[in-house]
Amino acid sequence: MRAEIVGIGTEILLGQIANTNAGEISARLADIGVDVTHHQAVGDNVGRIAEAIRLALSRADVVILTGGLGPTADDVTREAIAEALGRPLRRHPEIEEFLREKFRRLERDMPESNLVQADVPEGARYILPDRGTAPGLVVEPDDGKRLYAVPGVPAEMREMLEVNILPELSALTGGGAIVSRVLRVVGVAEARVGELLDDLFQASSNPTVAYLASEGEVRVRLSAKASTREKALAMITPVEEEVRRRLGDRVVGLDEETLEVAVGRLLAESRLTVACAESLTAGGLASRLADVPGASAYLAGAVVAYSPEAKRGLLGVSDQTLSGEGSVSKACANEMARGVRALFSTDLGVSTTGVAGPDELEGHPPGELWVAVASEGRESTTHFRAPGDRAQVRRWAQVLALDLLRSHLSQPPVGRASG
Amino acid sequence: MRAEIVGIGTEILLGQIANTNAGEISARLADIGVDVTHHQAVGDNVGRIAEAIRLALSRADVVILTGGLGPTADDVTREAIAEALGRPLRRHPEIEEFLREKFRRLERDMPESNLVQADVPEGARYILPDRGTAPGLVVEPDDGKRLYAVPGVPAEMREMLEVNILPELSALTGGGAIVSRVLRVVGVAEARVGELLDDLFQASSNPTVAYLASEGEVRVRLSAKASTREKALAMITPVEEEVRRRLGDRVVGLDEETLEVAVGRLLAESRLTVACAESLTAGGLASRLADVPGASAYLAGAVVAYSPEAKRGLLGVSDQTLSGEGSVSKACANEMARGVRALFSTDLGVSTTGVAGPDELEGHPPGELWVAVASEGRESTTHFRAPGDRAQVRRWAQVLALDLLRSHLSQPPVGRASG
Repeated sequence: MRAEIVGIGTEILLGQIANTNAGEISARLADIGVDVTHHQAVGDNVGRIAEAIRLALSRADVVILTGGLGPTADDVTREAIAEALGRPLRRHPEIEEFLREKFRRLERDMPESNLVQADVPEGARYILPDRGTAPGLVVEPDDGKRLYAVPGVPAEMREMLEVNILPELSALTGGGAIVSRVLRVVGVAEARVGELLDDLFQASSNPTVAYLASEGEVRVRLSAKASTREKALAMITPVEEEVRRRLGDRVVGLDEETLEVAVGRLLAESRLTVACAESLTAGGLASRLADVPGASAYLAGAVVAYSPEAKRGLLGVSDQTLSGEGSVSKACANEMARGVRALFSTDLGVSTTGVAGPDELEGHPPGELWVAVASEGRESTTHFRAPGDRAQVRRWAQVLALDLLRSHLSQPPVGRASG
Repeated sequence: MRAEIVGIGTEILLGQIANTNAGEISARLADIGVDVTHHQAVGDNVGRIAEAIRLALSRADVVILTGGLGPTADDVTREAIAEALGRPLRRHPEIEEFLREKFRRLERDMPESNLVQADVPEGARYILPDRGTAPGLVVEPDDGKRLYAVPGVPAEMREMLEVNILPELSALTGGGAIVSRVLRVVGVAEARVGELLDDLFQASSNPTVAYLASEGEVRVRLSAKASTREKALAMITPVEEEVRRRLGDRVVGLDEETLEVAVGRLLAESRLTVACAESLTAGGLASRLADVPGASAYLAGAVVAYSPEAKRGLLGVSDQTLSGEGSVSKACANEMARGVRALFSTDLGVSTTGVAGPDELEGHPPGELWVAVASEGRESTTHFRAPGDRAQVRRWAQVLALDLLRSHLSQPPVGRASG
């Protein structure tokens, strides 16, 4: 089965938003053995969208449109489908009621113009969304092909992809599969990962080995194609074991298991609690820990102490440290971790301090950073000079702090807070 | 002048790498008045790439290909150009010498297979790169059109875009420009924005009006095309004024001025300081304020108080509130804002409390949230029921808190902290 993805929106062609949907849908279709052969993107123009639809249907079995389903006048995907397939739009009472109910629940007035979202091409199915207000559309032209239209907002697209499109297509393909596993590697440079795995990479065809690097993390992707998901997984397993053997404890997570999920799992399993003392990350570390549902079981809270006064007053960093080594130092990171642990009476404290940039701080260049973890009778510290701009440096600091917390937790025992 | 961008690489169609080049090139072309009408992406397949080239050349004046210029066997862009345009490849001695020299400088042996990068379609120009080893190609078919092929690695693409493509195209267009202004609107539903601006939208062709919604924010984009940047701006100005008149103080920022930048500007101008007390946003609010370079001048810090104990112990929320109305309440939000203001001795305190989900909290459903701002003798509060999942609810809370801070600051006077 061949698929084509068409992104709709003038803002894509102006470079104002990234068309991330195309990549995300492609990856999920690959998982169920559907080959994506083309991406297209066009602006909010009925004629061009209709032309893109006709082209896509001429060469693919399944076409997925993203975007242009909102309530405003520049949302013309519905009209373009009607034009491309010669199926006039009909207003659908069930969708109308659904929209009115959505607004009632949010205690807001529904503008009448919103009702264009209840328009459906003749003979098409529709998908009522859980998130947002834009219904999706499913049209089956007479030639056995299939056209989906889903919203451009990633979270709304994702819902229909997972709940409707993937199960429907998976049923149609009879389950052939491309399976990928992603090993998340922290604390090793991409080039070093490449060197360690070079022979596997050179030999790879099925499964294939690929790398993708971002701040502080390298993802190693292993992909295999087989008639079933199980067979594809069985092909991946020996390669995965070899990669893990070579990279050891630098492999910190699998697939969607981010570092914060891995850390959260370790904390929850050992029933330990943590609090964060943040300088340059300014709440970003706590926020990442809190991204994980259920984080309130182990994350007690955080103090963002930007100024020396806050570091001293709230976290108990000593005058000696502040006036001596300064706030970008091992001593300061350690005292911050200890201080926040005492303040929240948690088992662990974790801290970040350093220079996000663009300016120097206390004579230290942007990128210079320290992270520390404190537990009963034990402390760990990492020093690093991170590359990149302000945002990148702050992300590095988050990753390094999470990774230090992970490795600290992996070396038992971490004693319980007595407080 | 119309342009089309073709991304080449099977990894794009597998969703393994994002095709960020398309958006980046689009934005830069818009700056010099070149209309991008289509994006395409195809895999590493000579036939399909050649087909994509022919389609693009049939409807655009300029076609930019990215990717497939590397030295390995899956890099077939050169062959595809040769096929599409009927121009056989010739090995070019100057490129060959350039490649050998690159490798000599890196003190590595050059595999002979690398020499395919010295192949150039007959009659084409080539661009020697500063970064990387992949030369770019420039082909001018007989019909006055132009085809560029540049590497897929963003940094290598960017070099040829800036040094070669943009200056050449800018000279051809005589300096025409598309200018966009983006008005950031907070606290109004997308459909309501659409209604308020409907006649402007309907009447719009140059400048055009378009909308883009995300959690808590609608961006209204005005784009004008003219022979110069100044003329395009002059066409936008009256429409922008009319939009501002209709949306009033709901317009919170312009172009890249995000809400946190707008708030930061207000704080810096009035030399006021702020501290954050965060429950459901868990540091995300402070982190967003700190995204702005120079934020340390006004952001003193934050307390993330996830648990009732932390709300009581660190922020001084009263037992009466915690055991009565509970932590998802106006009283709790107000006391948190007051408490953090006192703790950091700042002019303002801002707080978030509510239910991120997925589970209920103290009988309140996910999405229920309160934000508050406290300054000397004045308090502001907002209640909201946010749609979406955990991550979306938390982003809504950040936006609402920043917006409340903005409107609080816009109603003078905000007294200075005495402490």
